Amino acid sequence: MSAVPEPDFLKACRGEAVTRVPVWFMRQAGRSLPEYRALRATGSILDAIAVPEVASEVTLQPIRRYGVDAAILFSDIVVPYHAIGFGVEVVPGRGPVIAEPFASVSDLDRLPDLTDELIEHVTATIDLVIPELAPTNTPLIGFAGAPFTVASYLVEGGPTREFAIIKTMMHRDPKLFDQLLDRLVAITISFLRAQIEHGARAVQLFDSWAGSLTKAEYERFALPATRKVFEGIADLDVATILFGVGTGELLGSMATAGSNVVGIDWHVDLDEGRRRVGDKAVQGNLDPARCLAGEALAIEATREVLTLAGTDTGYIFNLGHGVLPATDPDVLAAVVKAVHEEGKAGVE
Amino acid sequence: MSAVPEPDFLKACRGEAVTRVPVWFMRQAGRSLPEYRALRATGSILDAIAVPEVASEVTLQPIRRYGVDAAILFSDIVVPYHAIGFGVEVVPGRGPVIAEPFASVSDLDRLPDLTDELIEHVTATIDLVIPELAPTNTPLIGFAGAPFTVASYLVEGGPTREFAIIKTMMHRDPKLFDQLLDRLVAITISFLRAQIEHGARAVQLFDSWAGSLTKAEYERFALPATRKVFEGIADLDVATILFGVGTGELLGSMATAGSNVVGIDWHVDLDEGRRRVGDKAVQGNLDPARCLAGEALAIEATREVLTLAGTDTGYIFNLGHGVLPATDPDVLAAVVKAVHEEGKAGVE
Repeated sequence: MSAVPEPDFLKACRGEAVTRVPVWFMRQAGRSLPEYRALRATGSILDAIAVPEVASEVTLQPIRRYGVDAAILFSDIVVPYHAIGFGVEVVPGRGPVIAEPFASVSDLDRLPDLTDELIEHVTATIDLVIPELAPTNTPLIGFAGAPFTVASYLVEGGPTREFAIIKTMMHRDPKLFDQLLDRLVAITISFLRAQIEHGARAVQLFDSWAGSLTKAEYERFALPATRKVFEGIADLDVATILFGVGTGELLGSMATAGSNVVGIDWHVDLDEGRRRVGDKAVQGNLDPARCLAGEALAIEATREVLTLAGTDTGYIFNLGHGVLPATDPDVLAAVVKAVHEEGKAGVE
Repeated sequence: MSAVPEPDFLKACRGEAVTRVPVWFMRQAGRSLPEYRALRATGSILDAIAVPEVASEVTLQPIRRYGVDAAILFSDIVVPYHAIGFGVEVVPGRGPVIAEPFASVSDLDRLPDLTDELIEHVTATIDLVIPELAPTNTPLIGFAGAPFTVASYLVEGGPTREFAIIKTMMHRDPKLFDQLLDRLVAITISFLRAQIEHGARAVQLFDSWAGSLTKAEYERFALPATRKVFEGIADLDVATILFGVGTGELLGSMATAGSNVVGIDWHVDLDEGRRRVGDKAVQGNLDPARCLAGEALAIEATREVLTLAGTDTGYIFNLGHGVLPATDPDVLAAVVKAVHEEGKAGVE
């Protein structure tokens, strides 16, 4: 019996030569698929995540639809904080909302260690997914929110455009802010380790709101915690990706956080993005809005991205942000096909 | 009688040596001032703009409060489109909303030329402001929305985070998009010329949503129209500023649009921003959120900006986005004082 070959997605993460450019889509599991909407009906996304039979099915739906090179767990960055009882809900159309935001040192007690029991629904979902992915040797990507981004939600109490409360805390009470991030680092490491131990072969850390920081703020208030998270899983055999939005000025710093791959949002041309992250692998970065105007225009946009990505190894095609709800799944399927046929896999 | 000296603000716009670093704040006229809230009470901002006695008073309030080096007209980028009857309203807490968005070639007829009669309230406001500014030789800044940003509102029908409709129009029907922008160029030039002819000595073009575009999209779909606007006022004696948010990747392109100054938002370190715009003057870029945590921390942040701005000429201190409504006016006054005392004016 010959050894099972390493999937292209994992090879690309590690900068190794691939047979074709791998592709998956952020938010591929969820809102844009009619079979997802049929399955989920109404209710909070956290309710759907809590049922392994549902969450595993949603994780697998895009694999069947699109032929992507990786599955990503149907989950949410607030799952571990919901699990420890911090009092977070996800309000449809608004996002995570915290009834009692983190505001003082006494709130640190509301952030205990994450035990395996509290996330049994997550690991049970992975246990259902892994055997289904085995026949095609498709890797599962686990994920978590990066400590700074999670802290933004916990401190602001919900989505914000100004980040006024957390920036005030950072600059006025950096000690409290650091204590908060230390708790989040511990929880994030536990959450990722559980996913990896149950079979996730890659993990993506979403620092979605890192782009709200200047470079100096990022390096002081976000990067150290992110680095600790990657150090905390460095003993495990897993590929790692770090992604944020609006991070053009931060890419050079993010490249030092310890991940294999840096995700690049669609604002930054990929050739320039590669220059900023040095020898890291990159992932990205088709503007999701360009998948809304039909297949021909989406393919045209895909080709523009592939051209800027160049022919080097260490490249994973993705959107430069999550799939928009109004996206036609057939367009995404066509994008996958185009990437597989036309992407230059670095084996020339 | 000796000649009246040119104000530092105008000298800085043109890259000439100044006696001290000039400073003003985007959105200095409005929401954060209690005297503004007392004056305006409820109602649409367009109602307040329509009354020259009110609009001129709001324009002057920050001059008295802060000692800034320039006044900016109390107005809104949708004013000319409201004036021609396009059907735009400004909804408090939401922004501009268009009852019937621009969708097809027949809508071009809804964008006639802007006549002086339609904006008499704006020029009457300027006529009231100019004599009040004369004793301190403080320049008035007029402004308009850049064609792409205005088009975003007219096509999307209101604020958006995804720009799905306008991007679809751009890529699917570039001819219609170009026709729309040509109409907006003509209206914008008329609007700016009227302001300059009545006494505005500088104008700022707000391309607030330019950051929603990739560099290739910006150069194809936004920059040419912006360039035409600056060409359309090039015969007038006026300093010109171009500003957008999230434009880190676009600064090099924006520097070719024809303005004297490129405004830099707070995401981009000023030394790096200067590098990207070449020999243009720059304006920016204190994060408005850093003015929310008291005077001491705001001054600390101001010093960081001044350090990155360096000692070259061609620099105007500003925020890197508009004043946040919750800002304490005393903090902004302290920032002005610090800039005037500590800014390195390039005369060493």
